[in-house]
Amino acid sequence: MRAEIITVGTEILLGDILNTNTHYLANELASIGVDVYYQMTVGDNEKRLLECLQESLNRSDIVICTGGLGPTEDDITKEVCAKFFGYDLKFDEKCWNDILKLFYRKDKVPTENNKKQAYFPKEGIILPNDYGTAPGCIMEKDNKMIVVLPGPPREMKPMYDNYVRPYLLKKTDYIIESRVLRIIGVGESSIEEEIIDLIQKQSNPTIATYAKDYECTIRLTAKAKSKEEAEKLIEPVEAEIKCRFKENLYAIGETTIEDEVSKILVNNDLTISVAESCTGGMVSSSLINYPGISSVFMEGCVTYANEAKIKTLGVSENTLNTVGAVSEECAKEMAEGVARRHNTNIGLSTTGIAGPGGGSEEKPVGLVYFGIYINGKTIVKKYIFSGNRYTIRYRACKSIINDLRLELLKNNIK
Amino acid sequence: MRAEIITVGTEILLGDILNTNTHYLANELASIGVDVYYQMTVGDNEKRLLECLQESLNRSDIVICTGGLGPTEDDITKEVCAKFFGYDLKFDEKCWNDILKLFYRKDKVPTENNKKQAYFPKEGIILPNDYGTAPGCIMEKDNKMIVVLPGPPREMKPMYDNYVRPYLLKKTDYIIESRVLRIIGVGESSIEEEIIDLIQKQSNPTIATYAKDYECTIRLTAKAKSKEEAEKLIEPVEAEIKCRFKENLYAIGETTIEDEVSKILVNNDLTISVAESCTGGMVSSSLINYPGISSVFMEGCVTYANEAKIKTLGVSENTLNTVGAVSEECAKEMAEGVARRHNTNIGLSTTGIAGPGGGSEEKPVGLVYFGIYINGKTIVKKYIFSGNRYTIRYRACKSIINDLRLELLKNNIK
Repeated sequence: MRAEIITVGTEILLGDILNTNTHYLANELASIGVDVYYQMTVGDNEKRLLECLQESLNRSDIVICTGGLGPTEDDITKEVCAKFFGYDLKFDEKCWNDILKLFYRKDKVPTENNKKQAYFPKEGIILPNDYGTAPGCIMEKDNKMIVVLPGPPREMKPMYDNYVRPYLLKKTDYIIESRVLRIIGVGESSIEEEIIDLIQKQSNPTIATYAKDYECTIRLTAKAKSKEEAEKLIEPVEAEIKCRFKENLYAIGETTIEDEVSKILVNNDLTISVAESCTGGMVSSSLINYPGISSVFMEGCVTYANEAKIKTLGVSENTLNTVGAVSEECAKEMAEGVARRHNTNIGLSTTGIAGPGGGSEEKPVGLVYFGIYINGKTIVKKYIFSGNRYTIRYRACKSIINDLRLELLKNNIK
Repeated sequence: MRAEIITVGTEILLGDILNTNTHYLANELASIGVDVYYQMTVGDNEKRLLECLQESLNRSDIVICTGGLGPTEDDITKEVCAKFFGYDLKFDEKCWNDILKLFYRKDKVPTENNKKQAYFPKEGIILPNDYGTAPGCIMEKDNKMIVVLPGPPREMKPMYDNYVRPYLLKKTDYIIESRVLRIIGVGESSIEEEIIDLIQKQSNPTIATYAKDYECTIRLTAKAKSKEEAEKLIEPVEAEIKCRFKENLYAIGETTIEDEVSKILVNNDLTISVAESCTGGMVSSSLINYPGISSVFMEGCVTYANEAKIKTLGVSENTLNTVGAVSEECAKEMAEGVARRHNTNIGLSTTGIAGPGGGSEEKPVGLVYFGIYINGKTIVKKYIFSGNRYTIRYRACKSIINDLRLELLKNNIK
C-alpha cells in the first residue's frame, strides 16, 4: 500500500508552525508496512488542495490530511476532500452532542462556527476526537482512501492510534519491522565508515544512518510475512553492529540518553544530587523527567551566583578568587559539595561559560567543566562546546549524562 | 516570485527525523516577499526527485532543496538537480581544499567518499559551508532556479542567511512585512471570536491566528513597495488588537514568555531565586537561558526529595506530615524559604504531581501549586494541568512565568 501525507495550513507554508505531524505519521505508517512516497504541504486554498489530492491519488492509494478541521473560516479540508469524491456533507446530531458535552465540561458554550465541525459525508466513517472538538473522517471511493485528521498533534495522534491505525492494519498483508540502534559520541560519517561493508551489501534488512542532535541512530528495516521472520533477518546485522560500536551504542529503540541513565540509577539504587551553574537546571530537569526517579534523585542545586556556590555547596572563596568559578577545582568542589548535602552515591556538577558574553582568550565561550563524584572518588572533565547559548547548555547537559553512564560502566554498573 | 521547498531524505519519509528546515525556509521566504506554494518531501530516489523537480518548476520559479549533500551513497540531490538542468559536474579544487582544511582543523582526515562533495556544475554558484563539509549550490536555467542546501539545520541556516537570501533579495521588487502578536492564556477559537470582525474584513494586512503550545499568535502580514508603507498598513490593526487583548498580549515579534519576563527582572533589578519540585529545574533553566540573567538570578533549588525541602528551604516537617508536599502551605513555605536564602526580591515555587503515578482522588495527577513571593507578600495559585509527565511540567513552567509577569504588572512593573 502506498500513502502520501498532506499537511493543510497556510501557517506551515509561512513557516510559523513547525510540522511535527508528518514526522509522526510517516514513522507510524512505516511501522505497519505502508510506504510513504511523498509528503506535501499546501495552504488553506481549495484549488491547490484539490490539485494536491488529484496528484497524490494518481500516484498512491491513501492520502492522509492533517489540519483545517477547526471552526474558523480558513478551515476547509473536510469540505474539499468530500468535494473531491463528490460527497455531500450532512449534519450529524451525535457529533454535535459530543461537541456540546466537551464545552459544557469546561463550563463553556460552543460558538456558532463550531457547528461546521459536526458536518460529515454519509459515506464517511466519523473518527471521534477525544481531545478536542473536531472529529476526523475516513472517506473511500474506487479503491482510494482519504483520511482527514485534526492539526493539533495532541488531537491527531490519539485519533490516528485508536481509529486509523487499526483500520489500515486490516488492509495490509506484510509487516515492516524496524530496529533503531542509538549511538552517542561518534559522528555520522565515521559511523558510515565503520559499517560501509554492511551498508554496501544491504538488502533486507536495509541499513540507514541518521544524524540527530548530539547522537546518531542506525535504523535496520526488514520486510517479511511475520514479526518473527523479520526479527530473524535483523538479529545478525544488529549483533555485528553492536560488536563494532561497543559502549558507544547506548540503547536500542525509542529512548533517550537521559532515560537510560535514569534507569541505571534507579535499578542500581544509586542516589544522586546535581549542582549546576551554566546548564541552569537542565540536567536536573532531564533526569526528573523519568517517572520513578524520586527513589534516587535527592536535590538539584542551580548555584548560578557565586554566593550560592559558597553557601549551598561549600565551594571555597579562595577557589573562586584564584582560579574562578569556571575551573577544574570549582567543578570538583561543587560535585563533592552537592553529594555531601544528602550523602548521595553520586554528585554531578557543571560550571562553564554559556555565552554569548563572558568569554576570554584563556576561558572561551563554550568552556565547561564537569565534576563527577561517585562513591568517594571525583573526576573532572573539560570540554569546549560550540554553538549559541542554548546549544552549549544543551550539549553540556547531554554530555555529562553520557559521561556518567560511561563512568558507571567502567565500574560494571549498567 | 513563487517558490517551492523540497526536502530530500528517506529518513523524513520514514518519520525518523523531524523536518525543521522547511519551517525555517518558509518563514524566511515569506519575510522577503517570496510566496511558498508547496512544500514536499521525497526520498533519496533519483526518479522521484526528478519528477518532483519537474512538477515544482512547472508551477513555480524557484525550488529550494535541502538534504542529500553528504558524503554517503544515499546523497544524490546535487547530482540529480544538475542532471535536471543538463549540467555536468566538475571537480572544484578550491572546494576540496576547503574541505581538507576543515578536517585538518579537527585533527582528522577526510574519507574517500568526501570527494564527491567537491563536484559542481561550472554553470552553478558554489555556496560555502562554514559549518560542515558540504558546500551548496545555486543553479539557474531559462528563468528557473534550483538552490541546493545541506540537510543539517546548523549548516543550512547560515548558508541560506549569508548567501541565498541576499541573492534572492536582488530579484524581488516588493516586500512583505509581518508583525506577530503573542497572546498567552486565551484559546485560539476565543481569540478568533474576539476579532472576527477584523478577520472578516481583512485584505492588506492579512490576519491569521495560530495556536502554539500554551500560547497563540496573531500574524499581521502586509505587502507594499517599502517597509515604511507596509508598517503604516499594519499599525492601526495592531493597535486595535492590543486594545482588545490587554495584558494577555504579552509581546510583539519573535520572543518567548521566559525571555520577556527575564527582561522585566533585569531591567527592574529584581533579584530572584526559584524553588522547584515537580518542574525539576525547568523554570530555572528557562530563565537562565536569557543572556544577562546573572545580574538577578541567584539560585535555583530543585528540592525534589522532602528532605531537601526541609534542609534547604526550611519547609516545616509539620506541613509535610499534615497537608503534604503538594499543598498551598508547602508552596508558600518553599517560595518564602527560597527568597530568604539570598534575600531576593522574588521567590517562586512549584510543587505538584507530574504523573503518571502519584495521583489520588483528592490530589489528581496534574495538580500543581505555585508560590509567588514578591517583596514581602506571597500569593499561592492552584492549577490542574492535563497531559503526560513532560507536558504537565512544561505547562506548569510556562504558567508560573506568566503568572509572575501578571503579578508584577499589577504593581505596574513591566
